[in-house]
Amino acid sequence: MNIADIDTPAALIDLDRVEANLARAQGYADAHGLALRPHVKTHKLPRFARAQLALGAVGITAQKLGEAEAMADGGLGDIFLPYNIIGAAKLARLAALHGRVTLSVTVDSDETLAGYAATFTDPVHPLSVLVECDTGAGRCGVQTPEQALALARVIAAAPGLRFGGLMTYPSRGEEAATDAWLIAARALLVAAGLPPERISTGGTPGLFRSAQVTASTEIRPGTYIYGDRMQLAWGNGGWDDCALTVLATVVSRPTPTRAILDAGSKALAADACLLPGHGRLTDWPDAVITGLSEEHAQVDLTACATKPVIGDRVRVIPNHACVVTNLYDQVYLVRGDQVEEVATVTSRGRLG
Amino acid sequence: MNIADIDTPAALIDLDRVEANLARAQGYADAHGLALRPHVKTHKLPRFARAQLALGAVGITAQKLGEAEAMADGGLGDIFLPYNIIGAAKLARLAALHGRVTLSVTVDSDETLAGYAATFTDPVHPLSVLVECDTGAGRCGVQTPEQALALARVIAAAPGLRFGGLMTYPSRGEEAATDAWLIAARALLVAAGLPPERISTGGTPGLFRSAQVTASTEIRPGTYIYGDRMQLAWGNGGWDDCALTVLATVVSRPTPTRAILDAGSKALAADACLLPGHGRLTDWPDAVITGLSEEHAQVDLTACATKPVIGDRVRVIPNHACVVTNLYDQVYLVRGDQVEEVATVTSRGRLG
Repeated sequence: MNIADIDTPAALIDLDRVEANLARAQGYADAHGLALRPHVKTHKLPRFARAQLALGAVGITAQKLGEAEAMADGGLGDIFLPYNIIGAAKLARLAALHGRVTLSVTVDSDETLAGYAATFTDPVHPLSVLVECDTGAGRCGVQTPEQALALARVIAAAPGLRFGGLMTYPSRGEEAATDAWLIAARALLVAAGLPPERISTGGTPGLFRSAQVTASTEIRPGTYIYGDRMQLAWGNGGWDDCALTVLATVVSRPTPTRAILDAGSKALAADACLLPGHGRLTDWPDAVITGLSEEHAQVDLTACATKPVIGDRVRVIPNHACVVTNLYDQVYLVRGDQVEEVATVTSRGRLG
Repeated sequence: MNIADIDTPAALIDLDRVEANLARAQGYADAHGLALRPHVKTHKLPRFARAQLALGAVGITAQKLGEAEAMADGGLGDIFLPYNIIGAAKLARLAALHGRVTLSVTVDSDETLAGYAATFTDPVHPLSVLVECDTGAGRCGVQTPEQALALARVIAAAPGLRFGGLMTYPSRGEEAATDAWLIAARALLVAAGLPPERISTGGTPGLFRSAQVTASTEIRPGTYIYGDRMQLAWGNGGWDDCALTVLATVVSRPTPTRAILDAGSKALAADACLLPGHGRLTDWPDAVITGLSEEHAQVDLTACATKPVIGDRVRVIPNHACVVTNLYDQVYLVRGDQVEEVATVTSRGRLG
């Protein structure tokens, strides 16, 4: 099957670029003595998770229990779930997953920790729990190294839990501040006789600066496998490294400078990511996607020397690859113009 | 089953509100002599499409061929597909659909029209084709009434096509300009012996001003069935009319004024819709969802007199209901606190 045979819109994954992106990141991690634990949210495909392990990754990261379960179904055996898992229904699923794979989770409150301690009580097979630290991202996480120590003590005292270390997300350019936070927390933990086995940091934005967080032992990038406009804006890679494109058709040319694509927010995702425009047309880099409705992209061709016509097919690098993956039941794995396989996105829509 | 038994995140649809919203719109259409042809993109559920017909809708609107096919599978028999259908694969599917239901489509170019004319050649069972007009929205559509007439002539001359009238989207407050455009086009068409059988306009934003577009014979609102923050900003309805909410759990309270929900852009959609914040917490209306990552919402509780605690469940009215529906394989149909049924979103992800 050739790309020309694919109906639009469709998500294409360039395997040559995927392989190069995976090797580059693993090379960086190896060179700096960091364990690489890729986040699978970007691809949601067990095959790519296995490819990451084959290159040297120590395990994978999944953000929701449902994604972790799908990866366990796909044969992945070491899963980090950096999330506060709350409520009887999810704790029961977590216990079942703990019986199938090597599992670790995070906590940032006494409330979440009480749920873990009540659910996991077997000292022979304890659940590994890391403390999530807010080192500046303003999302989840304890606010001070002292709070991290306090939670670590409670974890260590629970018979069925094991203190697994520290986790933070993301660095995004504040490596020095993140490092200072983690060094302080590590010192407190060591002094208390609770040295962290892992200190897990970082995403793709700061991937190739990860070693600047000297306290880090493990990194969890996800988007690096595909790349996107947001990652380029963060300084990661070039256009020719972007492995995910949305194939679309020009369905209207209502004016000399306007084109309309058959890919809207349902195909490209509406995430603005603080970027101008909603995607880059690979063959018309001067075109600007000025707006998305659900089923149409409006494209301004004013700056284009040549202009696509009705029926032309274009490939669009999206703003944010991860959210695009979540919109497709299937993606086309391609090498050059040839489709090698159509892959089902097994953990798409696993929200809980 | 009670709402309390649903794990989060989940999309809930309040049936009492749905029924009131449907009745209100049908009442408006009836009172003003307008045919109501609801857009099913918002609910993507054949059962609600049938409910709309039972109240008096003349048929339905679907934006992509895949959504139309799913609705035909669900028993719907009169479908308007206001889209330029292009390419051999889609034209073959369109022909198959034309054999199953009463179908109408749109066109805004000679190129699209040539595809229709080549595919549909049976004068006994012609395809109804309306001309899409750009009356100000800046998306698809011919730019002038003269262009509309030119396309109408070509449609009328094609043996297997029938000129079905005019279509425009959306009004969004420019009713007078839209009406002037359509009146001018209608006059040209009547003078040419091609009176339009339908003039199809409008979406939910201008729903209750539809009669101001005096040329209109049919309206195609979609979002009115659920409502959302964007529609409230357009002046349509109140908070108690919003039928779709996302049920979420507070999974972290890292600071006295910050809460984190287990619903991020994968559950609420990132569409900013020019609104401050990413959703309204029904029980904490002074809370502000300041940011979404894929699996978390960050909530600022500064203005809240009382504040939710870890484990509390909240209901969130999203910015844009239609794109939220597209993220869920299933939605919970509720009446009060009782779940009446779990419905599969049959046309979710039908991109092409």
